[in-house]
Amino acid sequence: MKMMEEKLKIDKISKGTVIDHIDAGYALTILSLTGLDESKNLITIGVNVSSKKYQTKDIIKIENVFLNETQMQQISILSPNASISLIENYKVIEKKKVKIPKIIKKLILCVNQTCISNSDEPINSEFLVLEEKPLKIQCVYCERIYKLEEIVFTSKEKKEKIVKQRIQL
Amino acid sequence: MKMMEEKLKIDKISKGTVIDHIDAGYALTILSLTGLDESKNLITIGVNVSSKKYQTKDIIKIENVFLNETQMQQISILSPNASISLIENYKVIEKKKVKIPKIIKKLILCVNQTCISNSDEPINSEFLVLEEKPLKIQCVYCERIYKLEEIVFTSKEKKEKIVKQRIQL
Repeated sequence: MKMMEEKLKIDKISKGTVIDHIDAGYALTILSLTGLDESKNLITIGVNVSSKKYQTKDIIKIENVFLNETQMQQISILSPNASISLIENYKVIEKKKVKIPKIIKKLILCVNQTCISNSDEPINSEFLVLEEKPLKIQCVYCERIYKLEEIVFTSKEKKEKIVKQRIQL
Repeated sequence: MKMMEEKLKIDKISKGTVIDHIDAGYALTILSLTGLDESKNLITIGVNVSSKKYQTKDIIKIENVFLNETQMQQISILSPNASISLIENYKVIEKKKVKIPKIIKKLILCVNQTCISNSDEPINSEFLVLEEKPLKIQCVYCERIYKLEEIVFTSKEKKEKIVKQRIQL
């Protein structure tokens, strides 16, 4: 009975994408990083939802939206166990796990100022994935190693978006 | 029938707070600004939900959490029409509208570098609310006027919190 109630907390959508088994506490970061937070479509989000598999998890359901390859990669970095379901007529028509690439290109910034990826030459950042969970990546140019919480993401789309509110950290 | 289905998209909580009638698109900013995004409690969020009163709105339900005065004021600045319901045993035990104060103290930063509120002396920022919606506020010291999208919020709590992920804007 308890499971039933918990399941009901976020209802079905007719068409769109469900991102499930997000690491607890990462849904809002994923929405911001992927730019999905700018959508005018209905989004329902569960944060710290009880989960049989992982104790707690986050979940995002977004109507009428399907993810592109960049967004899938961004999610895989933040939540390597996430699963993506495509929904049509309230039914799952496709289900896939995100897959963290062996080399992450362009999505992450190397904060080492002397790294060649930060020079004036147009070299895209590139990181080798050493470990998936907990994440450990290494810049292929300067060999600096980063853990998940040290990562600074780049976001081309965000540059052009109107920043609605700034919060002074 | 359609209304029924829409209502069901976010289910009831047994105890906690419901923030309803948030201006569409502002729920995630509110979560971040109030620090509620750091909670380990269950949070369900609806973004761009259909609303009889305002066409679309956002809604936040957070279990076992009640808001303090600062959080209520932060919400009133971002969404002057928001309503707050306190829930016990699945029932609303108290309902209140947020009320934007006539003078907003400490919560907002005056970005005018020559303003006395930015001097080394310990003077708290203070803004007079000229108009509520659309918001127009004026720094009581340097008299600079700000619209909602120009506001930079201060956030004492955020300074100490671990910033999980940074996104380069």
